[in-house]
Amino acid sequence: MTINAYAAMEAGKALEPYQYDPGELAADEVEIAVDHCGICHSDLSMIDNEWGMSEYPLVGGHEVIGRIEKVGRDVNNLEVGQTVGLGWHSGYCGHCPSCDDGDQNLCASAQGTIIAHHGGFADKVRAQSKSVIPLPKGLDAKAAGPLFCGGITVFNPLVQFDIKPTDKVAVIGIGGLGHLALQFLNAWGCEVTAFSSSDSKAKEAKELGAHHIINSRSEQALEEAAGQFDFIISTVNVKLDWNAYINTLKPKGRLHFVGATLEPLDLSVFGLLMGQRSVSASPVGSPGTIAKMLDFAAQHNIAPQIETFKFDDINAALDHVREGKARYRVVLTR
Amino acid sequence: MTINAYAAMEAGKALEPYQYDPGELAADEVEIAVDHCGICHSDLSMIDNEWGMSEYPLVGGHEVIGRIEKVGRDVNNLEVGQTVGLGWHSGYCGHCPSCDDGDQNLCASAQGTIIAHHGGFADKVRAQSKSVIPLPKGLDAKAAGPLFCGGITVFNPLVQFDIKPTDKVAVIGIGGLGHLALQFLNAWGCEVTAFSSSDSKAKEAKELGAHHIINSRSEQALEEAAGQFDFIISTVNVKLDWNAYINTLKPKGRLHFVGATLEPLDLSVFGLLMGQRSVSASPVGSPGTIAKMLDFAAQHNIAPQIETFKFDDINAALDHVREGKARYRVVLTR
Repeated sequence: MTINAYAAMEAGKALEPYQYDPGELAADEVEIAVDHCGICHSDLSMIDNEWGMSEYPLVGGHEVIGRIEKVGRDVNNLEVGQTVGLGWHSGYCGHCPSCDDGDQNLCASAQGTIIAHHGGFADKVRAQSKSVIPLPKGLDAKAAGPLFCGGITVFNPLVQFDIKPTDKVAVIGIGGLGHLALQFLNAWGCEVTAFSSSDSKAKEAKELGAHHIINSRSEQALEEAAGQFDFIISTVNVKLDWNAYINTLKPKGRLHFVGATLEPLDLSVFGLLMGQRSVSASPVGSPGTIAKMLDFAAQHNIAPQIETFKFDDINAALDHVREGKARYRVVLTR
Repeated sequence: MTINAYAAMEAGKALEPYQYDPGELAADEVEIAVDHCGICHSDLSMIDNEWGMSEYPLVGGHEVIGRIEKVGRDVNNLEVGQTVGLGWHSGYCGHCPSCDDGDQNLCASAQGTIIAHHGGFADKVRAQSKSVIPLPKGLDAKAAGPLFCGGITVFNPLVQFDIKPTDKVAVIGIGGLGHLALQFLNAWGCEVTAFSSSDSKAKEAKELGAHHIINSRSEQALEEAAGQFDFIISTVNVKLDWNAYINTLKPKGRLHFVGATLEPLDLSVFGLLMGQRSVSASPVGSPGTIAKMLDFAAQHNIAPQIETFKFDDINAALDHVREGKARYRVVLTR
């Protein structure tokens, strides 16, 4: 059989139609007919080999929504015809301490959907059944793809760090991740502040769930926010004055990174020590947490705001994301 | 009345005998006859005005053991004659969210025992009764002083971050704080590793409770320890290669600072993100946690290893600490 995909043949080049034979379906795998696939900034990072680990031809796409077309002989959690999603991981080792503890997303041998594996910029994609999650009723399949990477990335810390509805929280950066964080945190019951450098996004941030906006370009505004927050989630990948943000945390507060900021965090120990504060970071989430997130999103009408492109227009869609124009997430569809 | 103390009259000078009149005893205060007082490195930092907040005359001493001699009229938790200890804090506001939650050590208005207040390098010291903790039976009063600052500083994170006996833990730096951390963590049931740059301390570290020693000067040894620890506590105040230590954490592991390292922590977000790791820091502990620590120390025969000096030899004692010669903690006694 043949899978019809779009692949980068080398770093930074436009994608080209690319066909491959995936071989026999493994016993623990499913094959998904791809209906929709979100574009995440990390697709661009992989296509452009920003992280130095890309292998070509590279088929991106890890925010997949589709229907199960085939199941391997050992698969017992999914059925042909089910509408499902696939995110950053397409398999786990299944036997390390992280897998045993339900933290499959931290499995050191987890298979990346687009790392030495062909992703969802294609008519079909395969994955270990454990990594494929049924879409609950009430979620719009076309818009749901970005939940499987962007969504789970910002939802997972709320579960992992036991964020409470009584917590005062803030989101740094109102983009693909941040616009989902605002929705989740509002529905979580929290009083939500958006840090944004862009006046134009203030109104949108409020519509998305922010109760307050702080202009992150104003040193004075940051100083005035001293000691306010239990939890701040940073979704940006640029360097900010992190000690100024730590100063806005309450005692025992946490500054959590989901944006892959490349420059080191030059943190003052005193800023952490005086208030017993924490700094942390995390990647995506486990299958169990993804399922919880999907239920919660369906319950609270949380959805990515998307712009759609046809699969054939994938290069235009990638450029749209590359140029920072996506409001807030781009989805390829048929 | 007159309190006979030893004070620094200006930054960096030898202490001199100094008498002061403490005025009327406040309703919520007690007066303690000082029997023993530990010397902590932060006494030197304050005497030398390293933190830029010292006021002179400065009476150091915040690891006090003594007997209650007077109680204010509203004091109902302590009685004249009780043997008690006093640590870094000599009072709390009593009504902020941190005080309400039992986190008095994080109270922004907490009174430092040696900050704009005269400490325990004296025959008497006063403090708010809330900050003074009775010494349980079974603890040697002469050696107990260092528990009230050094001890609680390393014990508090075990409570705050829910360290479990099944956790694999490590201690960076085997000194005044580290030698207590090793004892507490061993008694906590953990498998304990000591990171030390000093071969001479390896044997002592094992006697104190370390099951394993890693030479922190060996890059290779650090690399070989990748992914081993749930919790690392750093007691040093120098700059190390923190990202190399973060690499030795398991997924969800925590690197916790109790040493007041002045240089920024240049942390890689990727190192935190890939394993959902945390970095944090904390100061001393609350009265409730100090009481728990004292009980635990008595139960498990945990004690600071001390060298004693007479109060009259306080300048020699301070020099001994300043020169890094203390093994592991210096206590002034009568």
